[in-house]
Amino acid sequence: MDSDYGIARELSDLQKLRSHYQPELPPCLQGTTVRVHFGDATAAADPTGAHTISRSFPLTYGQPLAHFLRSTAKVPDAQIITEHAAVRVGVVFCGRQSPGGHNVIWGLHEALKVHNPKSVLLGFLGGSDGLFAQKTLEVTDEVLATYKNQGGYDLLGRTKDQIRTIEQVNAALNACTALKLDALVIIGGVTSNTDAAQLAETFAERKCPTKVVGIPVTLNGDLRNQFVETNVGFDTICKVNSQLISNVCTDALSAEKYYYFIRLMGRKASHVALECTLQSHPNMVILAEEVAASKLTIFDITNQICDAVQARAEQDKYHGVILLPEGLIESFPEVFALLQEIHALLRQGVSADNISAQLSPWASALFEFLPPFIRKQLLLHPESDDSAQLSQIETEKLLAHLVEAEMNKRTKEGTYKGKKFNAICHFFGYQARGSLPSKFDCDYAYVLGHIGYHIIAAGLNGYMATLTNLKNPVNKWRCAAAPITAMMTVKRYGRGHGASILGKPALHPATVDLKGKSYELLRQNSTKFLMDDVYRNPGPLQYDGPGADAKAVTLCVEDQDYMGRIKLLQEHLDKVRSIVKPGCSQDVLKAALSAMASVTEILSVMSAASGGSTPF
Amino acid sequence: MDSDYGIARELSDLQKLRSHYQPELPPCLQGTTVRVHFGDATAAADPTGAHTISRSFPLTYGQPLAHFLRSTAKVPDAQIITEHAAVRVGVVFCGRQSPGGHNVIWGLHEALKVHNPKSVLLGFLGGSDGLFAQKTLEVTDEVLATYKNQGGYDLLGRTKDQIRTIEQVNAALNACTALKLDALVIIGGVTSNTDAAQLAETFAERKCPTKVVGIPVTLNGDLRNQFVETNVGFDTICKVNSQLISNVCTDALSAEKYYYFIRLMGRKASHVALECTLQSHPNMVILAEEVAASKLTIFDITNQICDAVQARAEQDKYHGVILLPEGLIESFPEVFALLQEIHALLRQGVSADNISAQLSPWASALFEFLPPFIRKQLLLHPESDDSAQLSQIETEKLLAHLVEAEMNKRTKEGTYKGKKFNAICHFFGYQARGSLPSKFDCDYAYVLGHIGYHIIAAGLNGYMATLTNLKNPVNKWRCAAAPITAMMTVKRYGRGHGASILGKPALHPATVDLKGKSYELLRQNSTKFLMDDVYRNPGPLQYDGPGADAKAVTLCVEDQDYMGRIKLLQEHLDKVRSIVKPGCSQDVLKAALSAMASVTEILSVMSAASGGSTPF
Repeated sequence: MDSDYGIARELSDLQKLRSHYQPELPPCLQGTTVRVHFGDATAAADPTGAHTISRSFPLTYGQPLAHFLRSTAKVPDAQIITEHAAVRVGVVFCGRQSPGGHNVIWGLHEALKVHNPKSVLLGFLGGSDGLFAQKTLEVTDEVLATYKNQGGYDLLGRTKDQIRTIEQVNAALNACTALKLDALVIIGGVTSNTDAAQLAETFAERKCPTKVVGIPVTLNGDLRNQFVETNVGFDTICKVNSQLISNVCTDALSAEKYYYFIRLMGRKASHVALECTLQSHPNMVILAEEVAASKLTIFDITNQICDAVQARAEQDKYHGVILLPEGLIESFPEVFALLQEIHALLRQGVSADNISAQLSPWASALFEFLPPFIRKQLLLHPESDDSAQLSQIETEKLLAHLVEAEMNKRTKEGTYKGKKFNAICHFFGYQARGSLPSKFDCDYAYVLGHIGYHIIAAGLNGYMATLTNLKNPVNKWRCAAAPITAMMTVKRYGRGHGASILGKPALHPATVDLKGKSYELLRQNSTKFLMDDVYRNPGPLQYDGPGADAKAVTLCVEDQDYMGRIKLLQEHLDKVRSIVKPGCSQDVLKAALSAMASVTEILSVMSAASGGSTPF
Repeated sequence: MDSDYGIARELSDLQKLRSHYQPELPPCLQGTTVRVHFGDATAAADPTGAHTISRSFPLTYGQPLAHFLRSTAKVPDAQIITEHAAVRVGVVFCGRQSPGGHNVIWGLHEALKVHNPKSVLLGFLGGSDGLFAQKTLEVTDEVLATYKNQGGYDLLGRTKDQIRTIEQVNAALNACTALKLDALVIIGGVTSNTDAAQLAETFAERKCPTKVVGIPVTLNGDLRNQFVETNVGFDTICKVNSQLISNVCTDALSAEKYYYFIRLMGRKASHVALECTLQSHPNMVILAEEVAASKLTIFDITNQICDAVQARAEQDKYHGVILLPEGLIESFPEVFALLQEIHALLRQGVSADNISAQLSPWASALFEFLPPFIRKQLLLHPESDDSAQLSQIETEKLLAHLVEAEMNKRTKEGTYKGKKFNAICHFFGYQARGSLPSKFDCDYAYVLGHIGYHIIAAGLNGYMATLTNLKNPVNKWRCAAAPITAMMTVKRYGRGHGASILGKPALHPATVDLKGKSYELLRQNSTKFLMDDVYRNPGPLQYDGPGADAKAVTLCVEDQDYMGRIKLLQEHLDKVRSIVKPGCSQDVLKAALSAMASVTEILSVMSAASGGSTPF
């Protein structure tokens, strides 16, 4: 099977065209000279978790941010890295395939070779299993030729998602040592980057010279924090899904007799559902975060949908499109509690057939109320992260079923006098994942690959490649690297949505911020979306002409550019320092002192107050 | 609700660009002068049915073909239509929405107005129900502005598919009379065009001056015959589905652990499945026509798939993609027989719960063997055309279930030693239907709309607009009109696959020709597809650059251009006549006589022999 990896393959006309597409580099990465400027030491966003994180990562916590600047940049203490020794780098795909993953490898390879043609890039075959087994393929121009700007992870393949157990970590360490790797680049999401951070710490502790670098690639878009604005793959996934959702909207509007319930990807967070809603304007979206925050039960949501159906029927509209994320089912408090009981019994070895009888009275009542197909799906063994098998649970069918029952009841009672409610259900889970990546994802992944190299050249360990200011054109993108530990949080609230191990620092999936601008945009438009059928059809993913350069709505509306703003603050501080030099007037000093005292006091109060919650 | 139709709406950037796209016209339709040349009187392809058809359609059967030629064309007996009186035309969407439908209306409107600005085009709102109720919207440039080159049928909407009962036909006649329509254009597939032919005959019989014109628009691509090469919508549907199938193939190849079973549209015919296979090269496709022709049972197919899984496992491959059309379930002889029994009992009013007990012993044995979810789906009431509710029957899940059971059995018996078989199922039924139409469908529909007008201008009744030589560029397309009755056949084989009313002439869905070149191409490549993972990714539908002008593979490989060849034959005959004029030598006459006698004898024998089967 190994011989299948990396072989040239026949491409369609469009794939060929795309394979010749050359992404642009931001100015700072052009040429062979790059300046690195180290910022202040980083801290975790959550100050109360910082101590736990620093204890778990004594060697890699608190490292400074690294900004990559153009060689002509006038930053006094920036270093220019001039010597580029030949390096040996390993790269591995971890977790689910995400469109654009191949371009990370391409960018990394390109940067390696530009700076020293003797450098070697080894791809691990078959994901982390290939890493443990030391199965590699040398990545060359020839190998890359038919994979540039293409979807999937099939250049190298992938298997398991974990590098976590003692055996796995040891196997990774042995592989890096045996292959004399200067660095290991891990391409993945929240879990894989947590593993990368742990690996970096362990390698440092065991004096293994291999540096570990993480790249944020995950189609759920939930690896988001102050340093990371979006993930490779998210843009493509949302565009392809929006294309399909719009097709369904057009269909709904043409036939005028069906409600379509569409379940989208998004286990711990509803980013895909939110973005697709903002792109295609379906009638409704039910975000797991909203449900969890309002503690709505599945019956509340059923009633909300029924009220919407009824309001539309009064306008003689009998069609509609409703989106929901696959994680929704776990966000209903009563269903979550039921799932916890079921999983506990399964872990005790109780067979699925006998579970119903051993549930608590209320859980049993809920369970028996649900239709048989859902009961069967809820009884599936939980996944390795303790969440239910969300891709297997047909929440869209359950909701359609409950809404139909309620509408029939209302008809019987005479409170609803419209036509019969008809539903059609869809799960758009896998259709988009193997797509040709969008231009944005091609560019983003390629540049991240380059940054990956510069992290290695700067000798950094436990960093993630980051790009900010992404809503602007490529030449305005800011290239940087942030310690992965600075993105960690510590969960303290017990078995919440997600049930992670208590107290262990980790990257956690960022959920949709209900105070953010994207959600606000949704709220402002939700009545119009619901009643007026203002469906928007972005059409199929284009590579030329209008729409080809479109970016995710949620990326564009948020005030992101955290890195840019951090730099701006530093400039202010430097300016104050340069104005208030010894020798300045008494008045200037007095004004400065008073103003700065007030600023520091405000910030101290705010930092203490925000300590309890994770701001991202 | 009516006020929602035809209103301007907000378009995305890509939709806006597309709304400005101007399809090309073939040379013969450019300018305001078009020549019409009438060919020989048409006959149905099936000579034994011809008598029945001519008896049912005394006024509209046997009319000649009409070719539309450029005004400068040197065809002696072609007429130039110079007078273009103002006409009032009605247009109605019948049946399922198909990408490109809006462009038929645009082309028709454009042609009407170019030839006489006083002509009026009335769109019926909400399909045939709108026709019966005489609910219209005047189609204007303004109304069309945001619907040009856009998907869906939402400009006018659609409802029921039938204009067939005495009440419906009378309502249509009343509408045409009341609205003083010179013509009624029906946009639809096999069923709707059969209705159009019937309506034309009835109108002629009742001296209603309204001419009826049909336009071949159906995404299944099964309105195919000697005059019609493909249907509006088929190209888009196959491209969008191939995009999704390729994504799944890439996914399969990246994860390497799942078999994907994908059910596609195609009730009576597997054209979509065949075309998508030729575009995206999945590992297997199971065509309903193959299964029906070979009388394979569902267990035969299960074993075939298991053998393929096993052969791939021997090459260490545990992934794959298998396509099947939704009509497959009815093509298994034993399942079809079971469905017949179920439907007969349902028609007798037996409730679904009691059916199992009343089945014949063998049908009952099969029924009880099937998994519960399929049993429930088989018990659904049949559709109006007596076929099962194919969109509701999850044949892909049934096959995945049976394959899994068989693989487990083989593992237990020790005949299969590979890894566990894992399946993921998809139904790609509705995702593509509302898509922005491909360039080909935009062009094809627009030109058909124009031809619709020229049929009306020539005063023809019961004709369908046709375009042939479609695999060549637009300037080579041949424009013509053929009497719908010439495309009819009469079913004589009793309750076959499709169970139409015996003896009544109708357009029947054309199934995949197992002797045709497209199927041959599939056969030649099937082993390579099965074993070598030569997945091809045509990518998302493009409007610019490579792939934007791609046409369906099945359109390009078949020797179609029937109209071109008919014309060529006529040229040969004319040439013989001009060479063998009175006064030619004895030798020439002798040679001509002998050759022609032999040709006529061969053709007589062939026509008689082919009488029993429908060649298309």
